[in-house]
Amino acid sequence: MAMKTLSAKNAAALDKDLMSIGGFSLDQLMELAGLSVSQAVYRLKSPIGGRRILVVCGPGNNGGDGLVAARHLWHYGYKPVIYYPKPGKNELYGRLTTQLKNLKIPFTTDFAAALKEADQVVDAIFGFSFSGEVREPFSAIIEELQNTTVPVTSVDAPSSWNIEEGPPSSGPGSSFNPTALVSLTAPKPLTKWFRGRHFLGGRFLSPDIAHKYGLELPDYDGVDQIVELGSDGKKKL
Amino acid sequence: MAMKTLSAKNAAALDKDLMSIGGFSLDQLMELAGLSVSQAVYRLKSPIGGRRILVVCGPGNNGGDGLVAARHLWHYGYKPVIYYPKPGKNELYGRLTTQLKNLKIPFTTDFAAALKEADQVVDAIFGFSFSGEVREPFSAIIEELQNTTVPVTSVDAPSSWNIEEGPPSSGPGSSFNPTALVSLTAPKPLTKWFRGRHFLGGRFLSPDIAHKYGLELPDYDGVDQIVELGSDGKKKL
Repeated sequence: MAMKTLSAKNAAALDKDLMSIGGFSLDQLMELAGLSVSQAVYRLKSPIGGRRILVVCGPGNNGGDGLVAARHLWHYGYKPVIYYPKPGKNELYGRLTTQLKNLKIPFTTDFAAALKEADQVVDAIFGFSFSGEVREPFSAIIEELQNTTVPVTSVDAPSSWNIEEGPPSSGPGSSFNPTALVSLTAPKPLTKWFRGRHFLGGRFLSPDIAHKYGLELPDYDGVDQIVELGSDGKKKL
Repeated sequence: MAMKTLSAKNAAALDKDLMSIGGFSLDQLMELAGLSVSQAVYRLKSPIGGRRILVVCGPGNNGGDGLVAARHLWHYGYKPVIYYPKPGKNELYGRLTTQLKNLKIPFTTDFAAALKEADQVVDAIFGFSFSGEVREPFSAIIEELQNTTVPVTSVDAPSSWNIEEGPPSSGPGSSFNPTALVSLTAPKPLTKWFRGRHFLGGRFLSPDIAHKYGLELPDYDGVDQIVELGSDGKKKL
């Protein structure tokens, strides 16, 4: 049976619903999204397995999720390093950056050197609103991410992938298949092409909204903010 | 050795610091505070031990923390009921209320009936900014909370207690000693009089801010948003 997924168009509409009829603020949603991502990274490899995490952030909300995740990862005992070459203009991103600077988390401009030092990477470059071509500096970064042996966890989408159609047919990202993916709110159609460990995050959806978009929500365990999914989109047992 | 605590005055100053130099928004802090509370409630008794949770919310930020906790508790599988007799004016409280109503979480006006049905209570009436006299309807509510055999978890302070001087010498609250207390950011001086299970929540403090207020932060485990403290204020092993 095919996994129930959320198209790019519906993901945007659902996000809008959450912030209008849902009553959520972007601050709240980003906090919960980033928290989910941090829990998936921990599940993949705890700080004992390697503390150094390179978090690559894009200019939009996906990058914001990465900034939040980095803060939680620091509190779990990791040593994050941030690569954020095109800081977004939203004042929220500015505040999330301040929170990291107050923890003395370094921001690097040398991606290649940081990657060499990393035990894990978080790819928070592009999310469900991505389409079209990847531009510099991100095309070179994605090239490196697809060639590295360091485990990469992508936030919502492997960056450069088309939300509906998966990896690009050529160029950067065409052979990118990250170690893990954290789908936020619901898996997108691109998960059909994804072959790594798949987590779902965003434990705040109401049954009404899930129903409106034809989603089936799996059961989370305990107080977890993530649940691991199998290739059928159901909870992995 | 006495526990390092945070006076009412310093708690207010620290909160102000978090939202200015700290870069946090109230939305974010309340989300993380409420999440901590929900994890403490779960630790006390999981939904298998009883699903029905009465969340009593005051008009201020302590009440907001309760509203957030109620949402997370619903997602964990509890059946929360909210008693919120004096809804705060802040638009954030309105949105948190909307989030609960979208989950069809009932708001009751009959506290006594709801208490009779409850497996656990969350006391989110007053927090670190409380001082002076408790007025109706909360004085009657606190009277009931001090007499009930249902486990009560208080958020930041047992409501009616003076932050520095503990329980009032007479009247409602004078013999109130809740089952559990979730101190947010740091324990307050009132914890000297508290005899139940003590959790610390708010895993977002920077070492600089902790140092500024002379606080010693215990180690949290894994991805936990709470840590249980012993009577010495150190992590309970």
